[in-house]
Amino acid sequence: MVPAIITLTTDFGQDSPYVAAMKGVILGINPAASIVDLNHQVPPQDLRQAAYFLRSVLPYFPSGVIHVVVVDPGVGTDRALLYVEVERHRLLVPDNGCWTSLVNDDAQPEVIRLAELRYWRLPVSATFHGRDILAPVAAHLTLGVDPAQLGPPTDEWVRLHLPMPRREEDRCFGEVVHVDRFGNLITNLPGELLATPAGRRACAVIGDHEVSRSVRTYAEAPTGAVVCLMSSNGYLEIAVVEGNAARTLQAGVGTPVVLALPSNES
Amino acid sequence: MVPAIITLTTDFGQDSPYVAAMKGVILGINPAASIVDLNHQVPPQDLRQAAYFLRSVLPYFPSGVIHVVVVDPGVGTDRALLYVEVERHRLLVPDNGCWTSLVNDDAQPEVIRLAELRYWRLPVSATFHGRDILAPVAAHLTLGVDPAQLGPPTDEWVRLHLPMPRREEDRCFGEVVHVDRFGNLITNLPGELLATPAGRRACAVIGDHEVSRSVRTYAEAPTGAVVCLMSSNGYLEIAVVEGNAARTLQAGVGTPVVLALPSNES
Amino acid sequence: MVPAIITLTTDFGQDSPYVAAMKGVILGINPAASIVDLNHQVPPQDLRQAAYFLRSVLPYFPSGVIHVVVVDPGVGTDRALLYVEVERHRLLVPDNGCWTSLVNDDAQPEVIRLAELRYWRLPVSATFHGRDILAPVAAHLTLGVDPAQLGPPTDEWVRLHLPMPRREEDRCFGEVVHVDRFGNLITNLPGELLATPAGRRACAVIGDHEVSRSVRTYAEAPTGAVVCLMSSNGYLEIAVVEGNAARTLQAGVGTPVVLALPSNES
Repeated sequence: MVPAIITLTTDFGQDSPYVAAMKGVILGINPAASIVDLNHQVPPQDLRQAAYFLRSVLPYFPSGVIHVVVVDPGVGTDRALLYVEVERHRLLVPDNGCWTSLVNDDAQPEVIRLAELRYWRLPVSATFHGRDILAPVAAHLTLGVDPAQLGPPTDEWVRLHLPMPRREEDRCFGEVVHVDRFGNLITNLPGELLATPAGRRACAVIGDHEVSRSVRTYAEAPTGAVVCLMSSNGYLEIAVVEGNAARTLQAGVGTPVVLALPSNES
Repeated sequence: MVPAIITLTTDFGQDSPYVAAMKGVILGINPAASIVDLNHQVPPQDLRQAAYFLRSVLPYFPSGVIHVVVVDPGVGTDRALLYVEVERHRLLVPDNGCWTSLVNDDAQPEVIRLAELRYWRLPVSATFHGRDILAPVAAHLTLGVDPAQLGPPTDEWVRLHLPMPRREEDRCFGEVVHVDRFGNLITNLPGELLATPAGRRACAVIGDHEVSRSVRTYAEAPTGAVVCLMSSNGYLEIAVVEGNAARTLQAGVGTPVVLALPSNES
Repeated sequence: MVPAIITLTTDFGQDSPYVAAMKGVILGINPAASIVDLNHQVPPQDLRQAAYFLRSVLPYFPSGVIHVVVVDPGVGTDRALLYVEVERHRLLVPDNGCWTSLVNDDAQPEVIRLAELRYWRLPVSATFHGRDILAPVAAHLTLGVDPAQLGPPTDEWVRLHLPMPRREEDRCFGEVVHVDRFGNLITNLPGELLATPAGRRACAVIGDHEVSRSVRTYAEAPTGAVVCLMSSNGYLEIAVVEGNAARTLQAGVGTPVVLALPSNES
């Protein structure tokens, strides 16, 4: 049986009538659907933040769940709306690439361009496809509609290019991609880079600060220490123990971070 | 079967123990109830905003859902608490009129004054009827209790008079009633007024700004353009393409908007 | 049957990928679990606020519900994680005492130290036990796992000592412990102290203000009046009728409040 779970990720705001309307449309089609709010505070129209959020979150969800993502700067253009199956995840998204960072190079996403009006709410508003197309299609999927019924398959879609870390000899250049509520700075640098040979250590540079202390968990260093660690989703994180690294280091999303790796010759 | 769905709309705040307590009371009576948060950030005691929210949202919900609305400046007075059935919606609300803008002139709402203590949580707090009356009554309704058991029918209730647009010859006077997270300004002017004969156009005046460009969707105008369009719930909306109209036009809830319609003589 | 309801209370923030990841883990183990958000805006690592929240909220929940609470300044230390059954409530919490104010002196909490890796998500992250231990254990409990399987019972746990009101003759010294969205000040002083003999009245002192008007509900005093009343959860509350006491009295969490009781001799 397909579990009737639909998650919602939007940039509408927690208190938005737009979110509430989408819930109403879903429940009108499948009153048994279980709607799970993931995040309605994605910065407005910020596809990168939507992509980082999805990449941080979807791996923890089971197969079968339908993820509706409405961060849609292109609403009203002729951009397509897509049903995507990738690495066991199922998404309904505008064709803006916010899901593409979920894909490994060898993944074979199955992508369908939504076209079958039978599963839409008509007439479709010019400015709110989340309510009139994505929400009703999600509800129909939980009722067992075959994705192949939603429209033609396609192998063309927009790819979103997130800033990738760049390696130059013994330096790796990245940036902060998320600041959590504690002020911890999560970067796009792989956390494994911290696993250096005994006696050598990596050193992160952020602004004027050199962070050479690397820990497994906050509690290994005293209050106020600035530390590097592997974040809970596998990336390099910079934190201030029992403090707020974003404030202390005056850093935020986009702040460059350079990781100097111990050279082999030394 | 009555679907066991209860929505919550309050001015308590997303993180409020009051919301959590209401959820507990509901689940104590019907553990199978599905509780759907709509909005807990209604501005404190702002009945107009509650009314606009309900009007924007309830039409998308199916019949049978119970909508509990707790924006209740009159708690502790002798104002009644009501069960309302109107245009297939079912609400539990303090008698403050926040639901009355849902009613068409020819609608025949069925209204019951809550009086049957058997369905309440006793003793009733003097300051929190949402938890002690509305929440338990909602839960009992999802278990199949007949609304007629809740108290006597009444044909008296408070009407909330929202500011209505006023027409004077070829001008229509309204105001902003909602600002969404993107800064779009949604007014109380009917969106159909934008549908003018070919070659003529309506022009909205807001503050010092004349907005004469009318589009079907944001994407029809260049970045930064100030445009009028029909909002996704049918009202005149003023937006800045890929920008924030509230900030650009320094407008907010209550800002007057005048729509100058093309005169027939011209 | 155990109802498959899991509540979440955290300091992660409403829009946090950490909350979403916990939901994914729960649904991966029990897709039928009903997840109820209580509060994700507990001030970061503020165990006292977490304790007040739980004390305000849990009494309204029925038995059987699993309450997952992740306010965890000690993550990564050797602090234990606990399953607690107390006064018919079931909690999964770090061993930081945030639940201990729920316990009456004569209560006999049953406490288990989580140790059985079979119910965890492996490998366990060093910094996110909410996702890797508490969430999966909660989901397994809703599937009927016997708590005794989770680890050994213990009778040692951390107690959190909340500031208790102190009585000195005819004065009772307390403090503000919660400010709600209306600016009402909820204290740790028992509301019953307001029930004085006829003709005598208690008087609350907060900052420079003496509040001698005691009401049953806001509506008993005119707009702008500063009043004492019993809050909806049984504590002394200071409010400004149709106003905001926190702003008017420049008070917040931690502000001292002294209640002067009428002396018997007078």
